[in-house]
Amino acid sequence: MNYEAKNALYIARVEAGLRALLPEAQAVWEDGKIPQGLCESMRYSLLAGGKRVRPVLLLATADMLNVDLQEALCPACALEMIHTYSLIHDDLPGMDDDDLRRGKPTNHRVYGVGPAILAGDGLLNFAFECMLQNAMRYPQHLEGHVRAMAVIAARAGVTGMIAGQSIDLLYEHRQMDEAALSYIHRHKTADLLTAPLLAAASIAGSDEPTLRALETFGQSVGIAFQIQDDLLDIEGDAASLGKATGMDAERGKMTWPALYGVRRAHDMADALWSQALASLDIFGEQADYLRAFVQNLRARRA
Amino acid sequence: MNYEAKNALYIARVEAGLRALLPEAQAVWEDGKIPQGLCESMRYSLLAGGKRVRPVLLLATADMLNVDLQEALCPACALEMIHTYSLIHDDLPGMDDDDLRRGKPTNHRVYGVGPAILAGDGLLNFAFECMLQNAMRYPQHLEGHVRAMAVIAARAGVTGMIAGQSIDLLYEHRQMDEAALSYIHRHKTADLLTAPLLAAASIAGSDEPTLRALETFGQSVGIAFQIQDDLLDIEGDAASLGKATGMDAERGKMTWPALYGVRRAHDMADALWSQALASLDIFGEQADYLRAFVQNLRARRA
Repeated sequence: MNYEAKNALYIARVEAGLRALLPEAQAVWEDGKIPQGLCESMRYSLLAGGKRVRPVLLLATADMLNVDLQEALCPACALEMIHTYSLIHDDLPGMDDDDLRRGKPTNHRVYGVGPAILAGDGLLNFAFECMLQNAMRYPQHLEGHVRAMAVIAARAGVTGMIAGQSIDLLYEHRQMDEAALSYIHRHKTADLLTAPLLAAASIAGSDEPTLRALETFGQSVGIAFQIQDDLLDIEGDAASLGKATGMDAERGKMTWPALYGVRRAHDMADALWSQALASLDIFGEQADYLRAFVQNLRARRA
Repeated sequence: MNYEAKNALYIARVEAGLRALLPEAQAVWEDGKIPQGLCESMRYSLLAGGKRVRPVLLLATADMLNVDLQEALCPACALEMIHTYSLIHDDLPGMDDDDLRRGKPTNHRVYGVGPAILAGDGLLNFAFECMLQNAMRYPQHLEGHVRAMAVIAARAGVTGMIAGQSIDLLYEHRQMDEAALSYIHRHKTADLLTAPLLAAASIAGSDEPTLRALETFGQSVGIAFQIQDDLLDIEGDAASLGKATGMDAERGKMTWPALYGVRRAHDMADALWSQALASLDIFGEQADYLRAFVQNLRARRA
């Protein structure tokens, strides 16, 4: 199967998996079921589209390491739930206070602040609930599933994504330096892209060299993706020169090109994309999907 | 050991456990460590005292079922983290918008709304991270620990505590009936009191009759505790008569005595306390601590 066919397959599995885990609620409340309003607000954000990068990475890595896709589907969907809860909470007043996300009103603009807080909490808790239920269905691989959940908890948590968000918030009104910018992107962005790779490898019971290669791959792709995001913002924007020389005026946030200049930021991204590809060498042609995945990300124009 | 000595022992273990899991941070940020600001805000609410009812119930049940207390300490502390995150998020603007909690300024009044959202998210995620790390330290009991985490996730989650919070929010400005009040208290309160009992029994590998008895105990104690709370609010308050006949004016929330009258609410609580004690019969004198726990809760005057 070529890259496009595999990609379409993974995305279709994820979309179906998310809908199966979180079907529409039929009653306002009922013991053992998710209440209707809560369920609707969780589905609103979870099923709003998006590229499904994290769950697709988990399924692709599972596939590469000969893990059954059905067994890996729940952790994949759980990562998308965690990503989605972080967006809902990020958009709240007191955080970024955004009105739009992916062209649609943010969760709290539709359902209110209280329900949006609960929808986020619900998605985070449900991610672990689904993974734990899934783990109990595979007693012969229980240890691998526990390791996968531990990796996801660590990368999503208070030394991972939440740590990155916390330092991001701290620097909202401060001049940011290289160390802070790097910390934020390593943890806020790259950790949640590394989690699916290591989670799949944990289920597969992979050895240390495999885990190290996937860690390098995830971190390189994560930072390169972030630098590229900053560059695309500038290049797709008439007000590019102002942005390229200082703080990102609109969001009040520091960017890689603002800190290093456009040229050096391009060079840094290129070096990271190359590092990502090199880390895949040990997998041979088994990693062709991940290689194509990198090339596709790298070639994107928005 | 008598009740008071055991109780003091369990509380001391929990307090030490929480501080060991979440020590003070030494640097603003550092890879692999919790950032200072995030850590401080998590500690502010987690170490603010309180009766530690949920973790003490877990340790007491573990003790009764011959589970090593050290092995049960992490799930016990995780339950307190989950309880604490729910209080931080409940107090936020958009939820109850409270300025004080246990006589101290609420988390968001001290650290700001954004950091308080992250402190709550952080405690919920950290609860699972700690339990997963702990589970990997006991490979011979891995299945029991996974079952315990699954029980905690279910009772804390979108069909448990969060479901109760969601329906509570839905009825904030509506007339509440018996079914809604019962649903809210069963899930918002009783589920998180049942979780420690079932989690301890899961680690112990207990049989169905044990799980059913502990479920009855937890649900009965949870609702009785809530009815008593409502009654204490009235009886400790000069404006009691007004409250007893309608909505709780101050909090805008329906209460058991408001719905049934003081006398019938007392009768309902008595029946539930008796049911809780009866459910312990199968444990014989092993359950003496839990019996004394019930008598102490029942006799409280605040």
